[in-house]
Amino acid sequence: MSKGRLEAFSDGVLAIIITIMVLELKVPDGADLSALQPLIPVFASYTLSFVFIGIYWNNHHHLFQAVHKINGNVLWANMHLLFWISLIPFTTSWMGENEFLAWPVAFYGISLWMSGLAYFILVRTLLAIHPEDSPLAIAIGGDTKGYVSLALYTAAIPLSFVSARFASLLYVAVAIIWFIPDRRIEKTLAK
Amino acid sequence: MSKGRLEAFSDGVLAIIITIMVLELKVPDGADLSALQPLIPVFASYTLSFVFIGIYWNNHHHLFQAVHKINGNVLWANMHLLFWISLIPFTTSWMGENEFLAWPVAFYGISLWMSGLAYFILVRTLLAIHPEDSPLAIAIGGDTKGYVSLALYTAAIPLSFVSARFASLLYVAVAIIWFIPDRRIEKTLAK
Amino acid sequence: MSKGRLEAFSDGVLAIIITIMVLELKVPDGADLSALQPLIPVFASYTLSFVFIGIYWNNHHHLFQAVHKINGNVLWANMHLLFWISLIPFTTSWMGENEFLAWPVAFYGISLWMSGLAYFILVRTLLAIHPEDSPLAIAIGGDTKGYVSLALYTAAIPLSFVSARFASLLYVAVAIIWFIPDRRIEKTLAK
Amino acid sequence: MSKGRLEAFSDGVLAIIITIMVLELKVPDGADLSALQPLIPVFASYTLSFVFIGIYWNNHHHLFQAVHKINGNVLWANMHLLFWISLIPFTTSWMGENEFLAWPVAFYGISLWMSGLAYFILVRTLLAIHPEDSPLAIAIGGDTKGYVSLALYTAAIPLSFVSARFASLLYVAVAIIWFIPDRRIEKTLAK
Repeated sequence: MSKGRLEAFSDGVLAIIITIMVLELKVPDGADLSALQPLIPVFASYTLSFVFIGIYWNNHHHLFQAVHKINGNVLWANMHLLFWISLIPFTTSWMGENEFLAWPVAFYGISLWMSGLAYFILVRTLLAIHPEDSPLAIAIGGDTKGYVSLALYTAAIPLSFVSARFASLLYVAVAIIWFIPDRRIEKTLAK
Repeated sequence: MSKGRLEAFSDGVLAIIITIMVLELKVPDGADLSALQPLIPVFASYTLSFVFIGIYWNNHHHLFQAVHKINGNVLWANMHLLFWISLIPFTTSWMGENEFLAWPVAFYGISLWMSGLAYFILVRTLLAIHPEDSPLAIAIGGDTKGYVSLALYTAAIPLSFVSARFASLLYVAVAIIWFIPDRRIEKTLAK
Repeated sequence: MSKGRLEAFSDGVLAIIITIMVLELKVPDGADLSALQPLIPVFASYTLSFVFIGIYWNNHHHLFQAVHKINGNVLWANMHLLFWISLIPFTTSWMGENEFLAWPVAFYGISLWMSGLAYFILVRTLLAIHPEDSPLAIAIGGDTKGYVSLALYTAAIPLSFVSARFASLLYVAVAIIWFIPDRRIEKTLAK
Repeated sequence: MSKGRLEAFSDGVLAIIITIMVLELKVPDGADLSALQPLIPVFASYTLSFVFIGIYWNNHHHLFQAVHKINGNVLWANMHLLFWISLIPFTTSWMGENEFLAWPVAFYGISLWMSGLAYFILVRTLLAIHPEDSPLAIAIGGDTKGYVSLALYTAAIPLSFVSARFASLLYVAVAIIWFIPDRRIEKTLAK
């Protein structure tokens, strides 16, 4: 089974998800600068989610470069990942339109947490069909970043009810950690 | 005629269909947990349809791996399949927003029934241009799953008016049957 | 310059156009069969446009199979075609929501006319960079279908104000003419 | 690292951006010609942005034909470009629905300015990993068009508050400058 169509379908879904979020930036009624003011939190949440989905695309791209074969389980693990990422536009809008209040910030974290878990499962499903000395297995290694992200999301979700602003900053921190693409794979493949 | 663009176009349409459904998860006005409650049936119908379209993509992927040539009839049989699948977001929303009432549940079944029939026609159109001993013909075999699905949809549609809940469970049953990708093709190709 | 990305971009745009039209099938408020009744003309116009865009994709697919090279003019002629096709969802909805009244039916015809003209220009732009004895030139030949379509649209547009129903039937007639994919190209390439 | 998926993902995002703008052409209530009149500025801004995004796709296509390798920085420079282009549908609608008033016209210019800057950064990021005598470096050359565009946008933004109409004409002027695809690259590659 070739990985080409899985990559093409994932690219399509991620391209649509990253783009339809902009539809939530509803065109304001007035033509003054003040008409844009209520959109600032919506724009902030849009930007944050654009970066997160960009990170997922980048890591997905890096991951599948090291993949040599796929099977039916990988197709479903990938579909599962796309399902949770597809909910990010919803949680993004809810958070943005409610100016980063507690519940929306917590649900945003849950959608990130589930996406992170789904990515983790996808990686494990791929490792299960690659030998232990494959470039994929070497490149993934201990997967520190994956564990740190899930830990930070786990902290941010309850924290939303104490300080939604601080919880939001934890999401930004995760984005910064992942901003640098998965150079482990890049380096291993370059050898 | 090469199958590459047909696969790319189908991937594009299926990626868009699976993603625009999330636009029906309308962002609620309040920022409390209770604001999300009316969305539960909408979310349930979204999840069910996400799985169904995921199944169609998976089976389409498996099917075309075994395909060696296409012609003009295949292009139209494929377009016909995409037409009926394109109506699933509509029937999904109608069912979700009306909390799984009789008519919406019946129409959801009709959209699945027509999609299933269109897939069946696509498979026959492909078989017509492949020899009887081709990997495609061997892999498809008796197509038990296809017949069972159509039988369950046929039962679920009238059943919607007796118990919409039970009819919905039949849809879930079909999803579970198809969840396992078409290993017939996978196995035959692996030989 | 390779034709691969032009095909991929066109596939993407056509896939989105054909799919977003379904968003105009607004989910009705009621859960009865009668709630669907006002959607019948919207559904009819959706189906007609789905077939038209399917025809454009099919013909685009056939056309570019015979293409050996492209240049900057082809890129723009193709973009020009996509522009007019991108307006079809708008004219489709206007026609469907106004139950096939005169002006909407006329404007639907104009969007088809301009798309047909843009396709004609694209074909000429391609012929200009292919030799007269190329498979493309032989396959296109006299382009009878193209001329007949433009003639029927030209008749249908003023006719909309006499009988919008009859004008709509002319659109259906054009769809039927084109329904059979461009076998000229298929046959010439098969030689 | 191969450039294939970066091109595919960019094609997908640009195809969606160029197409979802048409959703802002809201179907009018009436079925008369007069019902379309308020849509004229919306249609004008749609057409202008369609051309701009068409230009970006064309230039992106030409640019990556000369690219021999990419790295993680290129992925992010490309994502940064897509981010700013993704805001064009929003600024387009705001400008169109407010009939080209001062602030919306200025913000439209800002979204073009940022997209232009992001394209400039993408080009520099690519040049940094290609040798000085590579086809890419030779083709880009002095990048006069890029500088002229940024200069015209810089003039148009403050000018919006003096004469929004004249500022809009400057945007049209930039579109005309870029309309001719980047023949520098075409010529250099043809050698």
